[in-house]
Order: sequence, then structure tokens, then C-alpha cells
Amino acid sequence: MRNLRLDLCYDGTRYRGWQRLGDSDSTIQGKLEQALSRILEEPIEVSGSGRTDAGVHARGQVANFHCASAMPAEEILSALRRYLPEDIGVYSCREVSERFHARLNAREKTYCYRIWNSDDPCVFQRRFVAVMPEELSLEQMRRGAEWLLGEHDFSAFCGNPKMKKSTVRSIYAIDIRRAGQEVQISVTGNGFLHNMVRILVGTLVEVGRLERPAESLPRLFGARREQAGFLAPPQGLCLEEVRY
Amino acid sequence: MRNLRLDLCYDGTRYRGWQRLGDSDSTIQGKLEQALSRILEEPIEVSGSGRTDAGVHARGQVANFHCASAMPAEEILSALRRYLPEDIGVYSCREVSERFHARLNAREKTYCYRIWNSDDPCVFQRRFVAVMPEELSLEQMRRGAEWLLGEHDFSAFCGNPKMKKSTVRSIYAIDIRRAGQEVQISVTGNGFLHNMVRILVGTLVEVGRLERPAESLPRLFGARREQAGFLAPPQGLCLEEVRY
Repeated sequence: MRNLRLDLCYDGTRYRGWQRLGDSDSTIQGKLEQALSRILEEPIEVSGSGRTDAGVHARGQVANFHCASAMPAEEILSALRRYLPEDIGVYSCREVSERFHARLNAREKTYCYRIWNSDDPCVFQRRFVAVMPEELSLEQMRRGAEWLLGEHDFSAFCGNPKMKKSTVRSIYAIDIRRAGQEVQISVTGNGFLHNMVRILVGTLVEVGRLERPAESLPRLFGARREQAGFLAPPQGLCLEEVRY
Repeated sequence: MRNLRLDLCYDGTRYRGWQRLGDSDSTIQGKLEQALSRILEEPIEVSGSGRTDAGVHARGQVANFHCASAMPAEEILSALRRYLPEDIGVYSCREVSERFHARLNAREKTYCYRIWNSDDPCVFQRRFVAVMPEELSLEQMRRGAEWLLGEHDFSAFCGNPKMKKSTVRSIYAIDIRRAGQEVQISVTGNGFLHNMVRILVGTLVEVGRLERPAESLPRLFGARREQAGFLAPPQGLCLEEVRY
């Protein structure tokens, strides 16, 4: 069997997330598998580097799939571009070693969260930002972010209440910057729990609104979900890059 | 009667253009008049600086309307923001002199046309660009653009075959630049005929593809529509600014 790697982007607005559900028309994985199965004339299963939630976008999602077909990768790429809807884009399709697995081999991921921090209308960016016009102290948010770096038990930042496996993850970098009328928060780590980036963002926003002191964040390690901040809405989030 | 000025932006994707038609739900003017008439409890007519075609966007549209209501402009602004759909945004609503007329007083307008000049997917910009992946010579396009500057009879660039009035207009500036995977064409003039910017762009694209020599453009002044280039699709176009 050949092993092929896809580098993808998508506007997640009208999807129920990455992971295939019964109705394959409403997920990214479902759309890809449908298109590839038709193109290659064999049933195809696609593995993504990780799931993205309903409404979350990706600029650098990576996936792989196995197939028996001998169709050249370039041909698969152009067929895919014809078959897929215009809110799913494929940068490349290429042969990779048998051992490559998009999820298991992912070493590091970067997500970016975009906050529209202004009273002005945001007509053109509205699908890709969360509107939060209140004043935010970036200084306090950056101080809070520093406490989150490193390996910790992020139990309070996990959206799955029945999580049985370890909730320990490492965050390598959190970058918070102003860009025009936006506040953008980039988070890089070795892996993320369900909803983790959105809860991190909600917690940092509470710090930025001076509702929660920056230095209180370490008390959240190993704590319960209710102790961390609100779940920031999905449309502000984008999976930017996966590194192997 | 008071006279109020609105500064607006909109994503034109799902509208049949600026100008009110019978079914007011599908035009920008219709949406605004509907919202304002409800807010002010009197019939309101809105004048825009000019019409934008179906699918064309605006980042800097200007309009004005008269009303008897004494509601403060700030209150009208916040009510409008609540009433209007999220693809129409209002920057400001302010009292202006009796004599201000958004269309008649407009001195200069700038439009920008965005071409996605790449084979890469353009998932996030797809509503605001026209995809034209072929190689374009910006040098030739800039040479062509120079011939268009000044006052000329732009009859060949008018989409209305029954145009009775003068087709003479002045173009003050055409700026053509590469921005990442885009080619952006900004055009500033004292006024534009129906479809004029889109036909100008189509003609310059033909120059950029080396299908039409730059120095042949002056032959289009006073010529017939068929002699100019193709009508570039609406979604790449945005009304950027109106100056008074």
C-alpha cells in the first residue's frame, strides 16, 4: 500500500468539525474521504493530525491515507481540487514513507486565536474572529501566559469531562500581539486536549479584563474545568501548523 | 429635515448590489432603508455615493438620508448595528449640512480589484478575490495603465449599451502591485461608468497575459464595448473610498 500525505486548509464555518460523523457531508474528514474514494475507486480512510472542533479553521492541517491505486500524486491533487468544495483547499499531495502517520508522528502544533478587539464593524473578517470589544491588558495577558509555559496538568483546560487518559501537556510558546484592531494569541505545544486552546484563550481574556490575576493561573494545574475561564467561541481559532 | 451621513462597509457576496429593487431584502440600499424606517418610524430613502454591482464589496461606501426624527445620531448608529445583518457594517452616523449629497458631492472614488494569482488554494480570501492563476506581466500592465490616465471617452468600458449621457471620465491613478499571492489593482477617478472598473481590469489582465499590447489601449477611447477586454468577475472588486 502507498502512503500519501495531504497538506490542507479549510474554512470551518459550515462544518461540524474534522472528525467524520454518520453524515459525511458535514465534516472535513468525511468530505475528503468521499472525494478520495471516488477518485481512487477504493474505500479511503484519512487520518488527520488531530481533530478540529465544529467551526474551527485550519491553515496547516496535515493528513495521510493509504491506497492501492497507482494514480500519480499530482493527478490525485488536481482531481481533489476539482472535487472538493471551495472552503477546503489542498496545498499538496505527496508520497511519504510507510511509517508516516499524521497524528502519531506530530511533534508540535501551533494554533492562532484571533480576537476582534474593537467596536468597529468586522464585516470582512467576521468568519475568522471572535468579537470581544472590551479593553484588554496585553501586559497582564502576557504575564499570565508565562505561567502556562512548560509541562503541566491541564485538566482544568480539558473540555471532555470523561477524559480517562493523561491531561499532562507541554506548552512551548504563547505569543500575544496586537495587529490592527485584532488581538492575536498563538499557542505552540506538543499536543492539545479537547477545547484546550479555546479555554486557554478564555482564561487569558479574563486576565486581560482584570477579572482574574495573572499570578493565579498556576493554581489551575490539576484543577477542575469550572476553575478555568470561559470557552472562547470556535470561529476565532485556526490550526496554523503541525510539525513532525 | 435633518441630514445624516453614513459610512459603511459590506460583504456584497449575497446581495444583488447596492440599488434597491422590488424585493428589498436582497440589496444593500433596501436593507438600510428597511432598518432605518423601522428605527426612526418614518419612511427613509438612502442615497449612496454610487451603485455597486451584485457581488461587489465596499470598505468605504458613503450614503446620506433625511429624517424628521430627533433621535441622536449615536443612538441611530447603535440601533442600526443591532438591526443590520453581519455582512453590512456601519462605521459612523453623523449630522451633516443640509447641502451634503453622497452622490452629487462625490469628488473622487477609489476601487481596488484583487486577483488571486496563484495555483494555491485561497480558501480564506475566496469571497473577495477573482482567481486568475496564469502568469501576469505587471510591467506590461503598468505600461498599459499609464495610457489610461487622464480624461478620456471610456465608451468601450461602459457596460450599459443604452448609455445616453457622456461617457467621458477622468482617471487620476492606477496602482498595480503584488501582495503575497495576489495582484491588486487600485483605480482612482472622478467617477465610473457601469462596470467600468471591471472592464478596465479585464483589459489590463489581457495586457498582462500578453494578449493585447499596452500601447494599443488608447485606441479604445471612444470605441465600442466589444473592443475592450473581458468583464472581470464582481467578487474581486471593492469600493475602497469616496472623497468629498
